Amino acid sequence: MKFLIGKKSGDSHCVAPNQDFHCKNGIITKEDLQSSKTLVTTNINKDYFMSDTNNHDRVSKFKRGPQSMSPKDLGYIISRTRVGKHSKIVEAGAGMGVATSFFANVAKIVHSYEIREEHLKIVEKNLEKMNISKEDVKLQLGDLAEYIEEEKDIDLLFLDMPNPISILEKNLSAIKSGSYIVCYLPSITQLQEVSSLIETKENLYQEEVAEVILRNWKIWGRVSRPEHRKETDHTAFLMFIRKL
Amino acid sequence: MKFLIGKKSGDSHCVAPNQDFHCKNGIITKEDLQSSKTLVTTNINKDYFMSDTNNHDRVSKFKRGPQSMSPKDLGYIISRTRVGKHSKIVEAGAGMGVATSFFANVAKIVHSYEIREEHLKIVEKNLEKMNISKEDVKLQLGDLAEYIEEEKDIDLLFLDMPNPISILEKNLSAIKSGSYIVCYLPSITQLQEVSSLIETKENLYQEEVAEVILRNWKIWGRVSRPEHRKETDHTAFLMFIRKL
Amino acid sequence: MKFLIGKKSGDSHCVAPNQDFHCKNGIITKEDLQSSKTLVTTNINKDYFMSDTNNHDRVSKFKRGPQSMSPKDLGYIISRTRVGKHSKIVEAGAGMGVATSFFANVAKIVHSYEIREEHLKIVEKNLEKMNISKEDVKLQLGDLAEYIEEEKDIDLLFLDMPNPISILEKNLSAIKSGSYIVCYLPSITQLQEVSSLIETKENLYQEEVAEVILRNWKIWGRVSRPEHRKETDHTAFLMFIRKL
Amino acid sequence: MKFLIGKKSGDSHCVAPNQDFHCKNGIITKEDLQSSKTLVTTNINKDYFMSDTNNHDRVSKFKRGPQSMSPKDLGYIISRTRVGKHSKIVEAGAGMGVATSFFANVAKIVHSYEIREEHLKIVEKNLEKMNISKEDVKLQLGDLAEYIEEEKDIDLLFLDMPNPISILEKNLSAIKSGSYIVCYLPSITQLQEVSSLIETKENLYQEEVAEVILRNWKIWGRVSRPEHRKETDHTAFLMFIRKL
Repeated sequence: MKFLIGKKSGDSHCVAPNQDFHCKNGIITKEDLQSSKTLVTTNINKDYFMSDTNNHDRVSKFKRGPQSMSPKDLGYIISRTRVGKHSKIVEAGAGMGVATSFFANVAKIVHSYEIREEHLKIVEKNLEKMNISKEDVKLQLGDLAEYIEEEKDIDLLFLDMPNPISILEKNLSAIKSGSYIVCYLPSITQLQEVSSLIETKENLYQEEVAEVILRNWKIWGRVSRPEHRKETDHTAFLMFIRKL
Repeated sequence: MKFLIGKKSGDSHCVAPNQDFHCKNGIITKEDLQSSKTLVTTNINKDYFMSDTNNHDRVSKFKRGPQSMSPKDLGYIISRTRVGKHSKIVEAGAGMGVATSFFANVAKIVHSYEIREEHLKIVEKNLEKMNISKEDVKLQLGDLAEYIEEEKDIDLLFLDMPNPISILEKNLSAIKSGSYIVCYLPSITQLQEVSSLIETKENLYQEEVAEVILRNWKIWGRVSRPEHRKETDHTAFLMFIRKL
Repeated sequence: MKFLIGKKSGDSHCVAPNQDFHCKNGIITKEDLQSSKTLVTTNINKDYFMSDTNNHDRVSKFKRGPQSMSPKDLGYIISRTRVGKHSKIVEAGAGMGVATSFFANVAKIVHSYEIREEHLKIVEKNLEKMNISKEDVKLQLGDLAEYIEEEKDIDLLFLDMPNPISILEKNLSAIKSGSYIVCYLPSITQLQEVSSLIETKENLYQEEVAEVILRNWKIWGRVSRPEHRKETDHTAFLMFIRKL
Repeated sequence: MKFLIGKKSGDSHCVAPNQDFHCKNGIITKEDLQSSKTLVTTNINKDYFMSDTNNHDRVSKFKRGPQSMSPKDLGYIISRTRVGKHSKIVEAGAGMGVATSFFANVAKIVHSYEIREEHLKIVEKNLEKMNISKEDVKLQLGDLAEYIEEEKDIDLLFLDMPNPISILEKNLSAIKSGSYIVCYLPSITQLQEVSSLIETKENLYQEEVAEVILRNWKIWGRVSRPEHRKETDHTAFLMFIRKL
């Protein structure tokens, strides 16, 4: 697959190079798409930069919902907990698979639980688009609260659900000592409730509550300023809970 | 190794459990350290939460310099470029190894270049503390500008150096088409200079300039507010450049 | 004038109480509008909160352009320079009069320069809507660079224009020693240029460069989180220059 | 009084020009202090910029407590409510007088209530330093909850106190219809409590909750970046309540 972005127009496309590509700015020939050129020109003289597609392009074409995980939050979860290619991650709330596909790319194995069957089907398709092997992700229809005691050796438990308390109240011996549970919660009210619960639990310690804010900048010729209206909105707070 | 954190005092320690541990709040016995308790008490009745240590604890004990990479930035590099356990990362400017050890945990292989020999020795020690295999990281004394044309199949090139232009001006065919070069630059002035260079290069495209801001929150009893003075300072801007 | 805001619908209106008010949620009678009720109900049973209008309502009904000054920036100019009811403010770039009307409300006298005649007419109308006396504001068509040497005893010089250098290069003896010139500049590039000029001037000192970021919060029932998409965008940087 | 700031050292001083000034960088003569020079040199050849002092300098020399109001918050209160030189402001919680002196400079009259006598004495001294006339501020020892029903024609009620509910529950007919009550509250928990109360009151409407974040920038030669550790910390949230 080839990635195209208009030099002036800024419109971007992921296209299969097996036929001519038509867009509002004209036609790019199959021959150009199959070449190793980095700049191609349409029949009406519009320039497009060209490269191979990458994983970021693939994810941006996911079918996804309004609450999809943002890269700013996903990245901090990995870098703050320092899980990696030898780790097992369990997540509850697969959503559309944005987090699932990210974790699968980083961790040894991901177990992903989701209670909505139609979401699970979208997750499967999204993982295919990313060429993620079925050996890297185990998808499970159901409520993790019913399965958590069957899991073991968890390096990171990620809870993307409105009420994580049903899981935090369970026996959590499946999570390794010193490892993290990360709750992804949009509202301070939810943080307060989870925090109150943790106060009462002997095997949990609230280590950090973080909010990751992303600011995009426009650096172009004489312009150097924060970009207007681009992905910097509030998503959720991250609570890092250490399993004792 | 065991991790201890004072229930009231908040002081934290990573300790070997082969002998009694002495601190200003008293003594914790070897027997307690070797137990599976999650709450231990000193001889003067101070409580400490206890768990195994994790990678975050190990990194926080690194010898490091003032410009050490922050988790907030490292995470976004991985989540925005979507590199992972099958990827090759090349970095120039190993610094103290904070980024190196993070990348090594996530990627298949990291090639790390550093021009200061004394830094390279600290990196080696820091990687050992993280139990990172020598097969995961190739450390190289020297300037990447001299070696970049010998590299190949790079999925991510990370440049943590004041003047990345010496490298960006080289033949960059070692970087895969569609992959990213990420520059880590503290000042807008540097972004402007790199941006001007990219304008003149046919094989580079400036895709995003981002600043990651971390806000820590205190959620505790009746208090729910941003924390005072904790790690939220400016570090650097990240420029994501697509190799065409 | 009365201010109405829908209890559930959230739509707000400033209405004259001399006749019935019709909106999509029904009719509010003249009798209700003239009463001292705080909650009124339409003929189809929709509730509206009611109060007198205030200056904030009046400003929000201004005809204004995309670059209109934001309250977050205006407020900080006043509180950082500590000008007040005994001060003379001179501004260049009246725009639509948003800053002018704010300064006129706070300062003893405002001299406002604007090079576009059509803007000056809008400013006049906007000042009328705020009931601002003509004795509080002197509007002048023209370029302040040509008039600055005729001014005197300035407590605050506010420059809302793309190129303040034409003014900063003039004789600035009209500005009191110790008083401030505030430049309002959207891009870092402009700050750099002004900063370079100041370096060469014996009577100017760059005291602070600030960016004011406003975050609105939704606090409502069980929801406590930053609001989505509401006025928090980048406007401009403020440079506070002390006249020596 | 003269203001001095070291050209290289950056140390600043407010000095009376009636005698030589001694500091770690040497001596500046009385003659120089009384001149209209903008650059003066000590006997050991260190340069200082010189100007008259301004109100910002005077406030920065106030005796003040840890919770002192910040200009970023004070400014937004004025610009959001649009009170000015014709307005009456009532405040509860005079603290050290930072807000009091700011409001007195802007409004026609300020009534300020404070329950701690020792604070009230500091406020008096701080107002004197600002040359604020006693006719502009009425200081009152006591709890506003006991006096609010004796007040009248309030254009802005500012509550800087941990528990504003004792006042919000009173008869508030002293506040003009359409005018604002602004609560200054450090913690989300307090916002939630006030918000719950307002839900039950027929004459109050929660119009906005805001957080003002100040970012200082270093623009100097080749450096253009956010400043490290300078005044950008969390202070409090502002709740704007409209009196109906």
